[in-house]
Amino acid sequence: MKSSNIIYHQATVTQQRRNKLNNHKSVVLWFTGLSGSGKSTLAHALEEKLFNMDYRTFVLDGDNVRHGLNSNLDFSVDDRTENIRRISEVSKLMLEAGLIVMTAFISPFKKDRNEARSLISHDNFIEIYCKASLETCEKRDVKGLYKKAREGKIKNYTGIDSPYEAPENPQLTIDTDKETLNESVSKILNYLEKILVN
Amino acid sequence: MKSSNIIYHQATVTQQRRNKLNNHKSVVLWFTGLSGSGKSTLAHALEEKLFNMDYRTFVLDGDNVRHGLNSNLDFSVDDRTENIRRISEVSKLMLEAGLIVMTAFISPFKKDRNEARSLISHDNFIEIYCKASLETCEKRDVKGLYKKAREGKIKNYTGIDSPYEAPENPQLTIDTDKETLNESVSKILNYLEKILVN
Repeated sequence: MKSSNIIYHQATVTQQRRNKLNNHKSVVLWFTGLSGSGKSTLAHALEEKLFNMDYRTFVLDGDNVRHGLNSNLDFSVDDRTENIRRISEVSKLMLEAGLIVMTAFISPFKKDRNEARSLISHDNFIEIYCKASLETCEKRDVKGLYKKAREGKIKNYTGIDSPYEAPENPQLTIDTDKETLNESVSKILNYLEKILVN
Repeated sequence: MKSSNIIYHQATVTQQRRNKLNNHKSVVLWFTGLSGSGKSTLAHALEEKLFNMDYRTFVLDGDNVRHGLNSNLDFSVDDRTENIRRISEVSKLMLEAGLIVMTAFISPFKKDRNEARSLISHDNFIEIYCKASLETCEKRDVKGLYKKAREGKIKNYTGIDSPYEAPENPQLTIDTDKETLNESVSKILNYLEKILVN
């Protein structure tokens, strides 16, 4: 432990009090899946629905994390682990702040996701597996990154030259090969209905 | 830029919409000052007041950041800079999430605080200088860390063997040598009254 010279102060505004003010529980919805499996699209569509029901929400994804907090990390195994560690820590803070946090990152390694779950706490961590075949994801290839990875122009690309370890017991599996976006959003909303009640 | 292979997705729930839902603007209150100058105590006391007026708030301080997100950083000059960079990035995310974010860190270097201001945006960044003489802070020395620093048992301790660069034009200066905690909190609340209106 490097940080030994730290003074403690009592925080009186707790997660519980914030949840009461917001009139809903805070949770972390951890989306995981291959690039192109629909994590970020799904998270943002879900957020729009939740926001319109007055839920306090936030989406952490490549857009706001990889270019900011984690811009000094690359896609090596070590940096991917540090990437997920930082995202877990930020999610934990936002959970405490009363938000429904949605994280949309490939998060390919089981070990890293399990550590995220331990850190955030089992009860507040909902793992959502965005399942789509590599074939589908490669076909979608919105930014042409699979193509580049196949050509060797990008290294450590999940599904090509870096492994994806699918979750064994996710709280939810969303089959984005088969379901429409609306169907997937409804499925998650149904699941959350009871969980978000204070 | 390390992170080149990132796909963009449109977020529809914006800071502005969240501010409307919460019925107040989000801002970052950046407390700076020597160890023992009262930053964290002040931030938590202010938070309690704001929370009771239904503001959405969060305090980032040593308690929840140095032991979590930044637990792999020490107190060297480089790591202090990275510490403040990560705190700035998290504050920016929380600002976007609609929160009144209070950061309570020594943040001794002008350059780092200026970078935080640029990143977060000038309009949303309120610098609050917790002014107290080194003598006072050393007397308070709640955890005996100044004593340890004087004895050379802790290195890079701000005010002892690492510099503190006071802000030149902070939005607010709180003289914790002279003011009571209540006086200081009222002063900040008065300042915020107009700023927080949507």
